[in-house]
Amino acid sequence: MNEADFLDALRALPIHVAARGLRDDVARLIHAPLVVTTDTLVEGVHVLPDDPPADVAWKLVATNLSDIAGKGARPEGILLNYPLSDEDWDRAFLVGLGAVLTACGTGLLGGDTVTLPRGAPRILTVTAFGGDTPAPPRGGAGENDALWVTGTIGDAGAGLAIARGKPGPAALADRYRRPMPRLAEGRVLSRVAHAMMDVSDGLLIDAARMGAASGLAVEIDLAAVPLSVDYRAHRGDDRGARLAAATAGDDYELLFAMPANTVPAVPATRIGRFRRGAGLWLQDDGDAVPLPPSLGFQHRSA
Amino acid sequence: MNEADFLDALRALPIHVAARGLRDDVARLIHAPLVVTTDTLVEGVHVLPDDPPADVAWKLVATNLSDIAGKGARPEGILLNYPLSDEDWDRAFLVGLGAVLTACGTGLLGGDTVTLPRGAPRILTVTAFGGDTPAPPRGGAGENDALWVTGTIGDAGAGLAIARGKPGPAALADRYRRPMPRLAEGRVLSRVAHAMMDVSDGLLIDAARMGAASGLAVEIDLAAVPLSVDYRAHRGDDRGARLAAATAGDDYELLFAMPANTVPAVPATRIGRFRRGAGLWLQDDGDAVPLPPSLGFQHRSA
Repeated sequence: MNEADFLDALRALPIHVAARGLRDDVARLIHAPLVVTTDTLVEGVHVLPDDPPADVAWKLVATNLSDIAGKGARPEGILLNYPLSDEDWDRAFLVGLGAVLTACGTGLLGGDTVTLPRGAPRILTVTAFGGDTPAPPRGGAGENDALWVTGTIGDAGAGLAIARGKPGPAALADRYRRPMPRLAEGRVLSRVAHAMMDVSDGLLIDAARMGAASGLAVEIDLAAVPLSVDYRAHRGDDRGARLAAATAGDDYELLFAMPANTVPAVPATRIGRFRRGAGLWLQDDGDAVPLPPSLGFQHRSA
Repeated sequence: MNEADFLDALRALPIHVAARGLRDDVARLIHAPLVVTTDTLVEGVHVLPDDPPADVAWKLVATNLSDIAGKGARPEGILLNYPLSDEDWDRAFLVGLGAVLTACGTGLLGGDTVTLPRGAPRILTVTAFGGDTPAPPRGGAGENDALWVTGTIGDAGAGLAIARGKPGPAALADRYRRPMPRLAEGRVLSRVAHAMMDVSDGLLIDAARMGAASGLAVEIDLAAVPLSVDYRAHRGDDRGARLAAATAGDDYELLFAMPANTVPAVPATRIGRFRRGAGLWLQDDGDAVPLPPSLGFQHRSA
């Protein structure tokens, strides 16, 4: 598609009023405070060249809105940086973009379109805004706070292999391809959580980051990590399967710290606690468990 | 570089207080209203693989801040989406990033780092924020308003060829590689301009866009388009040289509409006027001039 056709197609999707119909160089956001976050997906790294374009759009927007959910904020629009390519891919991407914006109750604020040299992998960026938030920090956990997580962990990690052709439940592949940011849960939890973040790179690495940012040690009980019925049927429920789930990433659940004597008002599972000291400590039903070589996903230079 | 080293290096640059030391998933912006804009540079399209990395950083940030200048806004930080690559390139990029942030009086709010498949062209995105602005729209020009432009036009277009090896004044190549956004001028002009935008794709195409957005015809006198001494020495001053300057783009000057009987408080040149009707009309010292086949740069699909 060319830029003008793409912009016309975007105008048929949910558009934020601040975008002024995508006819200006800037969007104007009226209400503060705002939280802002940005993520880039690279074809061949974060998504596969044959991933359905509508799913790529969904994931790109959902992963950014998951960071907004992690701050308990209301989504307040997105910016899209998009490489124009072939008509079919662009059209399918737009369908997914409209679906995720509608599902998450937000709209497009603006962005930029570019053309790539022939054969270059697509690189797509979304920047998301959230409004009206007390924004619990990543580093706000207190000594003896409990560590909780929403939903189930490991589904998307198992789903990635299924999306790449391994036999397994389609529901797990869907968790990988179409994560649903925990926006409603985040708004409820932000009023009571001491610290909160979304789980994107892996439960263990993200919990370790929350502990480090809070200046505390964090203990996790592998036996308490919530696994879905599909995951257990597909991968089992032994320590290896639990470690795989806790290090796989792409969960987009919310990880949060609360006072030990409180229970959250949304479905969630208590998986550990914060203690004086430093580092991540694992146990499995009372047994100390050595840390696996990788706690999750970290970018490295090529 | 790996992600941790790159983040450490970023923390030595001007960092916005809202970035919380780049240790959280989001930046939090307190003051509204805000304007926001984003641009993506593609290696091989917008920049050359052998362009100095510090100049790439400068241009990436400056082009975004030019859109902020076009709204008369005060720069309020940037987000950077960056593909990590070899140590030397990353270090040199960081030097340019620090230089442009310092020169423009703003800081880093956050961003994302990714790794690319081997051999993939770099794709870099910056999103810029501006605060405290009356934000004159692109489409606010009135009938009989005069059209003005700051600085000189065409230098960067000629400079691109020089940067690619053609003999010519280094000052023109510098205009291409290190554009300086007209932030101070934008703040002054925003109080009096009816419409304003930065000139990025070419004077003629951007003026045509302002006219279309304002629902008016726009007339430009080629003889009035301000050319630098370097440009005239290098490319001459005939109609062809003036048309080349007015369609080359990358100027990052401010184009603005003001009532016919007023004069701006910053150095600028009156180059035309708005009339009832539609379209772009060119003249050269009184002669009607047919429109050139291309008015400037437009993205097309590959």
